[in-house]
Amino acid sequence: MNKKLNVAIIGHRFMGRAHSNGWKQAPKFFTLEAEPVLKVACGRDKQELRKFADNWSWEEISTDWESVFEREDIDIIDIATPTHLHHEMAIKAAKCGKHIFCEKPFALNLQQAESMLEAAQSANIIHYLNHNYRRCPAIVLAKKMISEGKLGRIYHLRSSYQQDWLANPDTQMGWQLDHELSGGGPHIDLGSHCIDLAHHLVGNISSISCLQAHFVKERRNSNNTKQPINVDDASIMSVEFDNGAVGSFECTRYASGRKNRNYFEINGSEGSIVFDLEKMNELEYFSSNEPSQEQGFRKIIVTEPNHDYVKNWWPPGHIIGYEHTFVHSAADFINSIVANNSITPNFQDGVNCMRVLDAGNLSAKTGQRVSIAH
Amino acid sequence: MNKKLNVAIIGHRFMGRAHSNGWKQAPKFFTLEAEPVLKVACGRDKQELRKFADNWSWEEISTDWESVFEREDIDIIDIATPTHLHHEMAIKAAKCGKHIFCEKPFALNLQQAESMLEAAQSANIIHYLNHNYRRCPAIVLAKKMISEGKLGRIYHLRSSYQQDWLANPDTQMGWQLDHELSGGGPHIDLGSHCIDLAHHLVGNISSISCLQAHFVKERRNSNNTKQPINVDDASIMSVEFDNGAVGSFECTRYASGRKNRNYFEINGSEGSIVFDLEKMNELEYFSSNEPSQEQGFRKIIVTEPNHDYVKNWWPPGHIIGYEHTFVHSAADFINSIVANNSITPNFQDGVNCMRVLDAGNLSAKTGQRVSIAH
Amino acid sequence: MNKKLNVAIIGHRFMGRAHSNGWKQAPKFFTLEAEPVLKVACGRDKQELRKFADNWSWEEISTDWESVFEREDIDIIDIATPTHLHHEMAIKAAKCGKHIFCEKPFALNLQQAESMLEAAQSANIIHYLNHNYRRCPAIVLAKKMISEGKLGRIYHLRSSYQQDWLANPDTQMGWQLDHELSGGGPHIDLGSHCIDLAHHLVGNISSISCLQAHFVKERRNSNNTKQPINVDDASIMSVEFDNGAVGSFECTRYASGRKNRNYFEINGSEGSIVFDLEKMNELEYFSSNEPSQEQGFRKIIVTEPNHDYVKNWWPPGHIIGYEHTFVHSAADFINSIVANNSITPNFQDGVNCMRVLDAGNLSAKTGQRVSIAH
Amino acid sequence: MNKKLNVAIIGHRFMGRAHSNGWKQAPKFFTLEAEPVLKVACGRDKQELRKFADNWSWEEISTDWESVFEREDIDIIDIATPTHLHHEMAIKAAKCGKHIFCEKPFALNLQQAESMLEAAQSANIIHYLNHNYRRCPAIVLAKKMISEGKLGRIYHLRSSYQQDWLANPDTQMGWQLDHELSGGGPHIDLGSHCIDLAHHLVGNISSISCLQAHFVKERRNSNNTKQPINVDDASIMSVEFDNGAVGSFECTRYASGRKNRNYFEINGSEGSIVFDLEKMNELEYFSSNEPSQEQGFRKIIVTEPNHDYVKNWWPPGHIIGYEHTFVHSAADFINSIVANNSITPNFQDGVNCMRVLDAGNLSAKTGQRVSIAH
Repeated sequence: MNKKLNVAIIGHRFMGRAHSNGWKQAPKFFTLEAEPVLKVACGRDKQELRKFADNWSWEEISTDWESVFEREDIDIIDIATPTHLHHEMAIKAAKCGKHIFCEKPFALNLQQAESMLEAAQSANIIHYLNHNYRRCPAIVLAKKMISEGKLGRIYHLRSSYQQDWLANPDTQMGWQLDHELSGGGPHIDLGSHCIDLAHHLVGNISSISCLQAHFVKERRNSNNTKQPINVDDASIMSVEFDNGAVGSFECTRYASGRKNRNYFEINGSEGSIVFDLEKMNELEYFSSNEPSQEQGFRKIIVTEPNHDYVKNWWPPGHIIGYEHTFVHSAADFINSIVANNSITPNFQDGVNCMRVLDAGNLSAKTGQRVSIAH
Repeated sequence: MNKKLNVAIIGHRFMGRAHSNGWKQAPKFFTLEAEPVLKVACGRDKQELRKFADNWSWEEISTDWESVFEREDIDIIDIATPTHLHHEMAIKAAKCGKHIFCEKPFALNLQQAESMLEAAQSANIIHYLNHNYRRCPAIVLAKKMISEGKLGRIYHLRSSYQQDWLANPDTQMGWQLDHELSGGGPHIDLGSHCIDLAHHLVGNISSISCLQAHFVKERRNSNNTKQPINVDDASIMSVEFDNGAVGSFECTRYASGRKNRNYFEINGSEGSIVFDLEKMNELEYFSSNEPSQEQGFRKIIVTEPNHDYVKNWWPPGHIIGYEHTFVHSAADFINSIVANNSITPNFQDGVNCMRVLDAGNLSAKTGQRVSIAH
Repeated sequence: MNKKLNVAIIGHRFMGRAHSNGWKQAPKFFTLEAEPVLKVACGRDKQELRKFADNWSWEEISTDWESVFEREDIDIIDIATPTHLHHEMAIKAAKCGKHIFCEKPFALNLQQAESMLEAAQSANIIHYLNHNYRRCPAIVLAKKMISEGKLGRIYHLRSSYQQDWLANPDTQMGWQLDHELSGGGPHIDLGSHCIDLAHHLVGNISSISCLQAHFVKERRNSNNTKQPINVDDASIMSVEFDNGAVGSFECTRYASGRKNRNYFEINGSEGSIVFDLEKMNELEYFSSNEPSQEQGFRKIIVTEPNHDYVKNWWPPGHIIGYEHTFVHSAADFINSIVANNSITPNFQDGVNCMRVLDAGNLSAKTGQRVSIAH
Repeated sequence: MNKKLNVAIIGHRFMGRAHSNGWKQAPKFFTLEAEPVLKVACGRDKQELRKFADNWSWEEISTDWESVFEREDIDIIDIATPTHLHHEMAIKAAKCGKHIFCEKPFALNLQQAESMLEAAQSANIIHYLNHNYRRCPAIVLAKKMISEGKLGRIYHLRSSYQQDWLANPDTQMGWQLDHELSGGGPHIDLGSHCIDLAHHLVGNISSISCLQAHFVKERRNSNNTKQPINVDDASIMSVEFDNGAVGSFECTRYASGRKNRNYFEINGSEGSIVFDLEKMNELEYFSSNEPSQEQGFRKIIVTEPNHDYVKNWWPPGHIIGYEHTFVHSAADFINSIVANNSITPNFQDGVNCMRVLDAGNLSAKTGQRVSIAH
């Protein structure tokens, strides 16, 4: 592994940490065709940025991200900023010919998404959209089992992504509740994860109906001033898939007791699977092809050596955690660049996802089911 | 308990058995103000009827239900027939001034439902609609906790009722798949249970959007002839409640591995509850009012002496089964008659439920959200 | 079913109710070769006895059980009294040539047990010992799967029976805590269930080591007088089986939150099973013979028509409760009598069980592992 | 953090990786008073060692561990070798005045353990024994709740540590099955974890009875030669604690389907807790002090910011994995050295643990309960 790829990251909070950890851990646990070098960390708050860079051994810091993007020695731009900044940064990175590792939600809306995809395609770069759960070993197994026909014909997807940090009406306002910065509430923030997994596991969506809730109309901000909320508090979607399956999605930040529960169930003619992120090392599986007396949902602990990604970590029964999915993403991204192969999910998946979410927003306004053309 | 109330039942299959058992067990385990006497069993197949009556000690049998309804010595009509017969029978029973214990789904449509209610009200009888799950001890506890404000303001209801007996496309046609006899597929059959519990636990529904799936277009009937299916295979609904909560319902017979899973989750500002009929002696409960380090969903085993209905059965930890809810219903119905008090759920609840289901059917056709006036 | 078998019961509390219900329900749900007739209820408290008999339709009552046992018209003696009365009653019933349905624990000690077995064998009667859990459908399935070799060679049994009604040191004294009446604490009361299932599912026990705990030395009785406790509060046993497997048992009334948790796990070379009475309609099963990526413990909901006893109750997914095991026992017992076939578990199983429990008591005193000869 | 502490590690397989990761991650996620410097990696297989050192950025490698231990610039010796090497290495490290981070099981027997403790005490060094599960956030919470009296008086500990890698009798021989190298089978390997947690959470053990199983007498080694097995295949222990509680332990490698299930339940007069390593981010808790209708085992997801160690990782509901406990240990160890405070568990805990395990071995031979003096 003599080859090196220099990374510049922009963003140094929750996602900055998770991405930095991904870059550091990937070469220690996986075989990479090139070494990711933590070259420059970009941000606006110099003091915070300094601490962040020192902690994660980023070689340099900069408050001028545009210049950094233009540097010849930079190979990869890692966009770990809030949603409203993705468009500008991705366009710039593409123009500079850099490979892009982009955090989700992809963009504020479909229009932004399409122009980001176009820019990436024109630049002929490797682009990756970090719907990290696709690289959770239990999800990889789910995908494999569906592809092998273990579930037969798919009838149902039942997906919900629940959090509870707004269940208390007195909780303060934050940037995620400002439409200009976030592009929406859980409909886009959590919904993009759900829709991406639906596309990945079931297929394309052909129509959507959406109901959005607005439980708490205003909240106090950090200045203790009441501010109206202009994003959805919850989003309930029902969809049809091209292949005849139907699905539902519920995304909310008001589900007391659900901390980060990305849950789905898929039912097919020959079996079913169930996943719950709060138990992310497990996949439940029911097979109709067992002797009828012995059928039941089984809990597969996805920590066996022959489960993807797993043998690189620990022995059977030793579970991995949330951040490991970022390590898997970083590893695959590096190897895609060296091999000059595209990787999924990418900006095309981001566009597909935004198309559904935008249609959902339209449906929420009109009360009408909306068709989706691909 | 010297008073006696003579019962005539019509229907002698699954529901005939469950109801007969209810009448027999109620006085053995509960204090009744009158004794239900199993007087006449009505039906068309005389041979089957004879066996049924002998097994359950019905004193007489009759293939002429109308005459039986008119008999002066009959106090209670127990309607345990398929849906399409409810309307005619309930109207007749009401006209004869009999108290009515009616199986669900209530009627084929709202129009039927309204005339049944009107007949019952005119006749001034005690009418009961057998949404038996309301008398499952865990549901009684759920209702009590919500009423006491344990969940705070309700935000979400997430309900699904899943079975799997049609997941195999080769499964035969049955009367439940014939719209004239059943009034619809899982939308009405399972949906009526879900909607009734939603009304009971959360409140009135103000709007509905509905998506219905038709996975398998035709099936062979008992003559091995292919017959088109004219009922829904699955129904996905999203609703708004008068009190600002939102809800979703999914009803299907295509969920491989789910045998009879009536599942719901309710999220409020101060807590959440979860129920699953496959574990009907349990209620999950999360409270936001515990010390934050110690919060979690707890599994209440609803078999303590101070749980409603439970002390009449067995000691703590000794679970009850499906048919016990019928015993509870029979006991409460008898006591309501003697006290001349109305009982819930009743025909008014049946009308409320059919109004939502009819609106759901309309929405499924138009793709448009439908408002519901009370 | 013209044949009738007249039953006389002795005992009218918890077990009297559960047995009466068994006799009443058995012919309604199962095909019996004879009808059990509830002839005489015996007891000492005439007033309570009257109420009990009226409720369950026992034709007569008597406070002189010995005379009743001698009546020619009585076919079956149902012993539903506390343990210390079993010996005298079973001996008498056998001498009178009556078939015996006997509640557990079988006897106060091995000596009593052996004489009861001898009496029953001499009398050539059908004798049944009511370890009712053997007729729980999930246990029947477990037995079947083990017999078919689904688990391969058995290595481990891990059994615990936990209750919590004495966890509070201020809970009052009761007859169960008086050695003369009960024969011991959970060691015999709960342990007899565990040992019987171990014999049934794994095989004979060849050695035992036992530790008994005495957490609370005295408790107030109903007169509010402190009384020393002379039974064990908890019993921990480790055993070897003839077939080379090893096992453990823990029985306690001090496990806060465990209401009636009869739990066991069996591990074999090709699979494992897990049972928990608090979820008695379920059996967990792990098979090592699945593709390794897809292995996991599956939860079989034992409510399918081809599960033993189940098709006589309700459709798939409609669970049964605690008392149903008594109905199964009553049905099988009646049919055994008519067929003149022995039934298990019977007094021989009672002797086998008491032999292990007595050896356990000896080990608890000496601290030494005790061998058990058959 | 200008201070640095130079680490030399010996051992470069499973534990070498887990420890290296601990040293690397600790300063990135926790506030350390000194920086651990990965100075020298020691081992015998130079080629493997080279790869290991390169992967984890150990500055140097050496095949002469004794010389390394003597180097003045080394502050910490990290012993990550098989059990039989611990004694020699710990004694040497102590003599060289180095702080010691030692993998478990501590030693082959009590005698070794005592001399290791004596050496460490004489040398006045900071010594740590890596029973890493003590630093699992759910265990930290369990300890805290017990200390606060949330469970009241402790009655029961029920502990089992199950794996299944030997359930197949054809599985090959390994060093863990050679008594000279491992000191025993699961009795010491898994049992040491169980006993350490028992000491930590419940208290000192005063007596033990032990049964050890030998299911498979010989296995083929890597040369395909049959070799007799001289370690236990499973160990079942029952113990008394000084405080009057009783406990049981079962350790096995023959529990099909249990990959790495370190499970325990503790019952007290006011509550109970349950832990399962396969769901290591969760702690189950039952409180008898809730309103009786609402009592139940709750599943605390131990990922809240106020749970120890957790706020340094990710937001609520984002779980951590197996290796994180090593990071916590590394962080606490470094800070203990700088503060010159002892850390637990340490060599004294290792001695306490070996004393119980040795007594267990004796009991297994004699069949007699063995008292343990402290």
